[in-house]
Amino acid sequence: MVERDAEAIAILGGTGDQGLGLALRFARAGRRVVIGSRKADRAVAAAEEVRAKVPGARVEGYENAEATPLAGIVILSVPFEHTAATVKGIREALRPGQIVVSMAVPLATAIGDGAVRTVGIWQGSAAELVADLAPDGVAVVSAFQNVSAHRLQHLADPVECDVIVSGDKAPREAVMALCALVPGLRGVNGGPLANARIVEAMTALLIGLNVRYKVPEGLGLRLTGLPEA
Amino acid sequence: MVERDAEAIAILGGTGDQGLGLALRFARAGRRVVIGSRKADRAVAAAEEVRAKVPGARVEGYENAEATPLAGIVILSVPFEHTAATVKGIREALRPGQIVVSMAVPLATAIGDGAVRTVGIWQGSAAELVADLAPDGVAVVSAFQNVSAHRLQHLADPVECDVIVSGDKAPREAVMALCALVPGLRGVNGGPLANARIVEAMTALLIGLNVRYKVPEGLGLRLTGLPEA
Repeated sequence: MVERDAEAIAILGGTGDQGLGLALRFARAGRRVVIGSRKADRAVAAAEEVRAKVPGARVEGYENAEATPLAGIVILSVPFEHTAATVKGIREALRPGQIVVSMAVPLATAIGDGAVRTVGIWQGSAAELVADLAPDGVAVVSAFQNVSAHRLQHLADPVECDVIVSGDKAPREAVMALCALVPGLRGVNGGPLANARIVEAMTALLIGLNVRYKVPEGLGLRLTGLPEA
Repeated sequence: MVERDAEAIAILGGTGDQGLGLALRFARAGRRVVIGSRKADRAVAAAEEVRAKVPGARVEGYENAEATPLAGIVILSVPFEHTAATVKGIREALRPGQIVVSMAVPLATAIGDGAVRTVGIWQGSAAELVADLAPDGVAVVSAFQNVSAHRLQHLADPVECDVIVSGDKAPREAVMALCALVPGLRGVNGGPLANARIVEAMTALLIGLNVRYKVPEGLGLRLTGLPEA
């Protein structure tokens, strides 16, 4: 059993392409990773996959609500249409001081339309929907929407992408620090959580660009002219 | 009097920072530029400013509706809140086959709020509003929203920014070719005009980043992983 560890990173939906990619990268950086899934056995299998690719990785797999209390930062990497249900399912397991990271994008695939468009969210963005559902004292941060799963999983190369991180200052900076663990990722201060409205939509634009330019490994984004940290 | 010239580029609102920057860059690339303004004398003064900075520049200044018929591509570089009125004012001067470029961003400054947020446009984006108002046979393309005026005007340096260009294929490609005239600018196929909804919002995000990172010259955007043209 993994004990509660503020330095650990939980990745719910860590069996999916993007969540697994983050798990591989954070484990490779030496961080303890807790993979969550709706089914514990799938999470355990994903953890084994991480260990196979990253020798010495500290990684465990659990059902989502069991994984949640074990880490300081809980990344939601479930498909957008499962986001609300997932947050409701872990609500009782979250504790004040924890940080929940929303990387969901409200793609129109959720309503049977295409991935190059989004649907409108009443709260403004998927991240603000998560914030609406999260218990008091739990900070919600928006990040990682535009990072290619393929690039994350291809451990030999840097990811070459800026991550626009939005939310309140202290949790935002904690998530920006996570970005620095991954070669080629750079966390950028994206201001208040409501800016997730823009960042989430950018993913739909990038998906269209990936199709038009035939880049199955996924394009990345860089800001030019940013002062060195 | 400048005669009608399909290779000429009209820039309405070319007396403003961003329009003047584009005028400088296109003139420097050897293209004939027609600056438009609500007042002809201001357009004439801006044309003189371009000639002073770009020796040999072919540039003239006219009132907007007089400038409009002189060029194949008409760039709208007026503040967002004047966009609809400007299009209505040049409607009779536009001819089938011309291309109108919308670079407007519906910043919330239009309603007395801040530049880091946008207002909703009934048609979906400022570019689609322009398309709604443009006469039949005139193509509307969305581009240049995210290009820093400061960087455009600083002729000594490349601009270092990707321009996401959205609209129908032939006019979109014509505008992407304009981007290639400016060192450091790269036109990127942004798909259908409706994607301007995303690109316009990105400007508000960039403005916030410019403030937070204290970059008065303005950040740029690059896509990473794009195949070479």
